[in-house]
Amino acid sequence: MSTEPGDEAVGHDELRLASRNHAMPLEALALDVTPVGLHFVMCHYDIPLLDTRPWRLDVVGLVEMPRSLSVDDLRALPSVTATVTMECAGNGRSLLRPRPVGQPWVDGGVGTAQWTGTPLADVLAAAGVQEGAVDVVFSGADHGTEHGSEQDYARSLSVADATSDDVLLAWAMNGAPLAPQHGAPLRLVVPGWYGMASVKWLRRIEIRDTTFTGFHQTRAYRVRESGRDVGVPVRRIRPRALLRPPGFPDYLSRIRVVEVGDHELTGRAWCGSAPVTRVEVSTDDGDTWADAEVSAAPGSAAWQAWRWRWAARRPGRAMLRARAHAADGSVQPDDPRWNVHGVVNNATQRVEVLVRA
Amino acid sequence: MSTEPGDEAVGHDELRLASRNHAMPLEALALDVTPVGLHFVMCHYDIPLLDTRPWRLDVVGLVEMPRSLSVDDLRALPSVTATVTMECAGNGRSLLRPRPVGQPWVDGGVGTAQWTGTPLADVLAAAGVQEGAVDVVFSGADHGTEHGSEQDYARSLSVADATSDDVLLAWAMNGAPLAPQHGAPLRLVVPGWYGMASVKWLRRIEIRDTTFTGFHQTRAYRVRESGRDVGVPVRRIRPRALLRPPGFPDYLSRIRVVEVGDHELTGRAWCGSAPVTRVEVSTDDGDTWADAEVSAAPGSAAWQAWRWRWAARRPGRAMLRARAHAADGSVQPDDPRWNVHGVVNNATQRVEVLVRA
Repeated sequence: MSTEPGDEAVGHDELRLASRNHAMPLEALALDVTPVGLHFVMCHYDIPLLDTRPWRLDVVGLVEMPRSLSVDDLRALPSVTATVTMECAGNGRSLLRPRPVGQPWVDGGVGTAQWTGTPLADVLAAAGVQEGAVDVVFSGADHGTEHGSEQDYARSLSVADATSDDVLLAWAMNGAPLAPQHGAPLRLVVPGWYGMASVKWLRRIEIRDTTFTGFHQTRAYRVRESGRDVGVPVRRIRPRALLRPPGFPDYLSRIRVVEVGDHELTGRAWCGSAPVTRVEVSTDDGDTWADAEVSAAPGSAAWQAWRWRWAARRPGRAMLRARAHAADGSVQPDDPRWNVHGVVNNATQRVEVLVRA
Repeated sequence: MSTEPGDEAVGHDELRLASRNHAMPLEALALDVTPVGLHFVMCHYDIPLLDTRPWRLDVVGLVEMPRSLSVDDLRALPSVTATVTMECAGNGRSLLRPRPVGQPWVDGGVGTAQWTGTPLADVLAAAGVQEGAVDVVFSGADHGTEHGSEQDYARSLSVADATSDDVLLAWAMNGAPLAPQHGAPLRLVVPGWYGMASVKWLRRIEIRDTTFTGFHQTRAYRVRESGRDVGVPVRRIRPRALLRPPGFPDYLSRIRVVEVGDHELTGRAWCGSAPVTRVEVSTDDGDTWADAEVSAAPGSAAWQAWRWRWAARRPGRAMLRARAHAADGSVQPDDPRWNVHGVVNNATQRVEVLVRA
């Protein structure tokens, strides 16, 4: 059995996290929209089990008219449904060496859903954001400690980012009320950004005239190259292509088996900062690459399907890879770029296949 | 940070499995019925993504009238809805030392759902099981290799077990069509048995006059004390109580924080062979135990709620445990009983809590 891409072992605490949270099984790349239960889930603390009816979202701080809105109040406003690919900032963490400790994602920390909600910009406009506002802080009902810091999970956006026209206060996912693990009854959805921005169980929006310095804004979710590096904040999703592993798997190693012959390789590719313009595929672990056919995106923040016909002529091992390029010139690296927190590792995927005669 | 109950590390292959499959987060013990996405999922191979309409269940072998039934054919027959607690036979595997390699469950490989389907006994009676029948073999659409053996996932029941009145051919879970990862469009549900018996993506039932010797019947899912021990088959779920961790967690260690004072500890307990008659709780890692109040089960194969008031007087560390006893005299052991495949480990749970002033 292969243990590519490395054997560095995972401890019990991380295993418990990996057991609570879950990836999208890669066969779900076949689906345009990822069903609840297959869409990735990442929750820092316990999942709050909340009643929708008494729930209130408070909009406070530097606003003309502070608000306390029920989910029904929000549903009565004009709504939007957007298809959004969401990815965990830590996707790929377990493939880094040395391995940063944390939720030990392999490569499936992703999913695409249809989110329905009220544009945040409308709610902020109705509340009246005052002069001097700098940050908009979003707090959830999930509570815990992390590296000695106790908090409700909270993240901020600049006023400019918060009032862009695609950010939603979402109460439905794939046409159904939110599931508890996806933030019921209300979550923020920030298309194009890694998942940490899309605060679940949202109960408070505070507009401030100072920069927010909460744990998940300034300590976690930063790309730091060393312990001394203050780093840069994680924001928009870097380009990534994933291929749906062909054939059938070995249970433990997930090495695939296919027969000699033609196989249509398919997958998805996405990028939070620009459309994906090109996907390349390799069957020899990156020695040579060929261009796949890439479809248009079903929405401005949704993944794009791609396909490529593989003529598998020789029995033996093959290592499949896929590599996405985006319109802004960004491209996936072939090797992981290490950082302290193990975030934004969008190195190209490797899928080992046994071709048999 | 505690890394109880042990540090023996998990390799990359197991991590990939742990990332695909997922446990029930223990806060979901608050719910009578576990929503899809929180209910545990364990799939050996890829999740088949199947259309319901062309799906056929073939009933073949030693029957008077072989059948090929659509899901609509089954739905037209009398149906039953049963509340069933299902648990993975490997639940607790990662807590054994030395650690058997496999899906590295901690303690959340469980869930309770309302399954709706046709009694299997009715379908077998209509087909007419012939004299000399020994085993009924159930095959799914999931295909893969395991220890060099290639197969569709398959399990058998004796004719007596298969014709008991509680086994279902289920097409709905919690009132909705089955999700892909729970066996859509059709799965077998065998109440009281560990989950390996409840074959997902069910497409074939074969009645045989010989004993079935498939991989998952005779090689996997056996309690073997050594490599030379042929072992005994895993069947009904052993007693287990789980407590809902109180307070709030630390992100990585999942150590809980509660304030000094009274706390109602709650949880669930279940056993596949008899009702749970007693649940004991310890706050000192098993030195002393007290009896909890145990509710009746909502169904003959469903978990039972329990509660106990904890007067947490002293700041400091506490180690909570719970222990279930069943009417057939079975009781949870305090320490794991090792076996080769790491199955049926129902040793009592440990939840570390920091009580603060």
